[in-house]
Amino acid sequence: MTAPLRVGLAGLGTVGAGVVGLLAANAALIERRADRRIVVTAVSARDRGRDRGVDLRHATWIDDATTLAARDDVDVVVEMIGGSDGPALVLARAALSAGKPLITANKAMLAHHGLELAELAEARGVALKYEAAVAGGVPVIKALREGAAANRLLTVYGILNWTCNYILSRMEAEGLSFAAVLADAQARGFAETDPSFDVDGIDTAHKLAILSGIAFGARLDFAHVAVEGIRAVAAVDIDHAATLGFRIKLVGLASEVGGALFQRVHPCLVPLAHPLAHVAGSLNAVVAEGDFVGRLFFSGSGAGAGPTASAVVADLIDVARGEVGPAFAMPTTRLAALPPADTAAHVGRCYLRLTVADRPGVLAELTTALGDAGVSIESLIQRGAGAGDGGGVYVVMVTHAVRQSAVTAALTRMAASSSALAPPVMMHLLDFD
Amino acid sequence: MTAPLRVGLAGLGTVGAGVVGLLAANAALIERRADRRIVVTAVSARDRGRDRGVDLRHATWIDDATTLAARDDVDVVVEMIGGSDGPALVLARAALSAGKPLITANKAMLAHHGLELAELAEARGVALKYEAAVAGGVPVIKALREGAAANRLLTVYGILNWTCNYILSRMEAEGLSFAAVLADAQARGFAETDPSFDVDGIDTAHKLAILSGIAFGARLDFAHVAVEGIRAVAAVDIDHAATLGFRIKLVGLASEVGGALFQRVHPCLVPLAHPLAHVAGSLNAVVAEGDFVGRLFFSGSGAGAGPTASAVVADLIDVARGEVGPAFAMPTTRLAALPPADTAAHVGRCYLRLTVADRPGVLAELTTALGDAGVSIESLIQRGAGAGDGGGVYVVMVTHAVRQSAVTAALTRMAASSSALAPPVMMHLLDFD
Repeated sequence: MTAPLRVGLAGLGTVGAGVVGLLAANAALIERRADRRIVVTAVSARDRGRDRGVDLRHATWIDDATTLAARDDVDVVVEMIGGSDGPALVLARAALSAGKPLITANKAMLAHHGLELAELAEARGVALKYEAAVAGGVPVIKALREGAAANRLLTVYGILNWTCNYILSRMEAEGLSFAAVLADAQARGFAETDPSFDVDGIDTAHKLAILSGIAFGARLDFAHVAVEGIRAVAAVDIDHAATLGFRIKLVGLASEVGGALFQRVHPCLVPLAHPLAHVAGSLNAVVAEGDFVGRLFFSGSGAGAGPTASAVVADLIDVARGEVGPAFAMPTTRLAALPPADTAAHVGRCYLRLTVADRPGVLAELTTALGDAGVSIESLIQRGAGAGDGGGVYVVMVTHAVRQSAVTAALTRMAASSSALAPPVMMHLLDFD
Repeated sequence: MTAPLRVGLAGLGTVGAGVVGLLAANAALIERRADRRIVVTAVSARDRGRDRGVDLRHATWIDDATTLAARDDVDVVVEMIGGSDGPALVLARAALSAGKPLITANKAMLAHHGLELAELAEARGVALKYEAAVAGGVPVIKALREGAAANRLLTVYGILNWTCNYILSRMEAEGLSFAAVLADAQARGFAETDPSFDVDGIDTAHKLAILSGIAFGARLDFAHVAVEGIRAVAAVDIDHAATLGFRIKLVGLASEVGGALFQRVHPCLVPLAHPLAHVAGSLNAVVAEGDFVGRLFFSGSGAGAGPTASAVVADLIDVARGEVGPAFAMPTTRLAALPPADTAAHVGRCYLRLTVADRPGVLAELTTALGDAGVSIESLIQRGAGAGDGGGVYVVMVTHAVRQSAVTAALTRMAASSSALAPPVMMHLLDFD
């Protein structure tokens, strides 16, 4: 019998407590799977007194999380503190420097410092694992890093943020505005008091930067992810999208294009025939397209104590089994430094909504502006605009595939027109069947 | 730089040649991911002369595949011969006994001899890997064995056979009979000349036995998988199912029920709201429900040279990285010997189609038979039967959840009735939302 794996756990919020709870609930099963026991020997959290509903009597309480790294009774450090820098990063560096495997769900820290941490882990020959950082309980990190390792991946994309997917799903189902659903979600505790991290797409961008590093064997480049959140998504656009056969989702998408790394987070019209269109509410999903395997699709619960703890403990079982593996799909020295792709040169279809005065000649003016810019139209709907939008008409269009810069040029001209009653709205389409 | 991983490959059919092709096409990428080169040094196949479209000039041809195991220039054996016994099994035993990792896509061999091979692998401390054996390119083995390892899995089920899914999808889309689609698929080379392995559910049962071993930490028990294929699925049932909000799929489903292992392969009415209903044509999909993670859903290409080679080479990369891991989610000594569950005691909803004479009192007779057996009805449709079915009427029902034995009793009584013009048809429903 191998000795137990002794865990030092920093952070006892919902997820940290969830990890303790899962390790207790499934202890016998985990011992069979890992071929040894996994026990929490030391914990650190701000408030000792709080009842977290889990039994911590056998763990030593530590005040300074950083000291977990140096303890003789800790074989592996689980970081559940959060935040890209600060104590989480100090602890991560300390653990790996001390030659202890690190498990974390901290996508912000990985997006900003993942490479440095991977290099530290490699130098000491220990594991850096973070299955819970992307798509909650869905083992997409493992699936891409190992399961799809034989493939040149052409693209990886997905629905990666719980809050945004919940808000968009409810906006569609109940015909409500973004602001109304957000306020309700905040009241129910489903969204943060400061929701900007989620609804402005930053959280999705963190996760996308990690996924694209793994998928393309590229050095993580969070700084060049083009990010647009869901605040500007209007109920009327969800409605028009449905009429046209699409559903609006916040999508993070990365591709390798001619040796450059294309990374974008944006509200996106997903065709109803695409499986991503049916990933509703609290689900997350990741799609990867490989040159040999074709399309892989993974979905499941993207957040919450149970699914996140499931991923953290899976990493613990891997560590208990002695599995190390490269943090980002290959040794860091082999990761390519891919330059960012020029998003203006990106070719794809777009959804446009223009709010214009209801008078003769306006449609001709719009279509001329588009034609002059080289943008051709696949479908067009005109209908009366709501009173809140100036009482004119909406002209809604889906373009054929076109360079982003051409659309931007046409929109600039149209926005300047005296017929425009509101700024034009533009969203990308997911250009996969 | 670590020395190259030298592969001995037995079997150069579509998949074997696909592995050689993938290793060549993505050689540079694979070297980065595995941190060493992976090279085929020796091959064995029946016909040396055949052009397989891949470059085998650097590999030594061997006549007797078994000798691959003993060669000094072979570090890992890839078995692509097929068949549950015979040369595949001889080679597998020889490789593992010689202390060489074995990679195989051979679900029949694993279903029958997987435990023995896993014990051999364990005794020698080498890997037994078989990602390609279930769901083709979709890394479900890794996802369940490692990604979901923290969970007690409640059930695992999926669409696991390409041929059946293709046939059922075309029957639905084109309104054709099973026989017509099968004949066409055979003419196009999409189905085997002897299709029984696929259409009678055996292939699905092999894969299910492997999945349930991993999911429930159970000793593989292929012998007790209840198996029913798709030959009896009629176009009229696909039609009725659609009317009722279902799509018929061949589903392999396993659960652990009170310490017993329930394993069944059967045509199944899947609710249209369930993601499995939308897994069409050549796709495979696996669903697992865990106590902490909730539902995980994985889909992708279930067959073909590219996807299968993708899974085989993923295993090779794992072996090249030095990853061993237990073959069936835990050491074989820790696998539980679960007794088979009593399928007659299984409780679930059923679809029933009765072809009966169109005369007064028949419906009362049927519903009395059901009521006497304790079967209550959720929905019922009556419509004229086709001329081929005796010209009576179809009475189509969906029951509430009921013990299988009660349905069987009612059906036996109804089949014996003088009103019955054809044997009753019964199919299970997928009782998950």
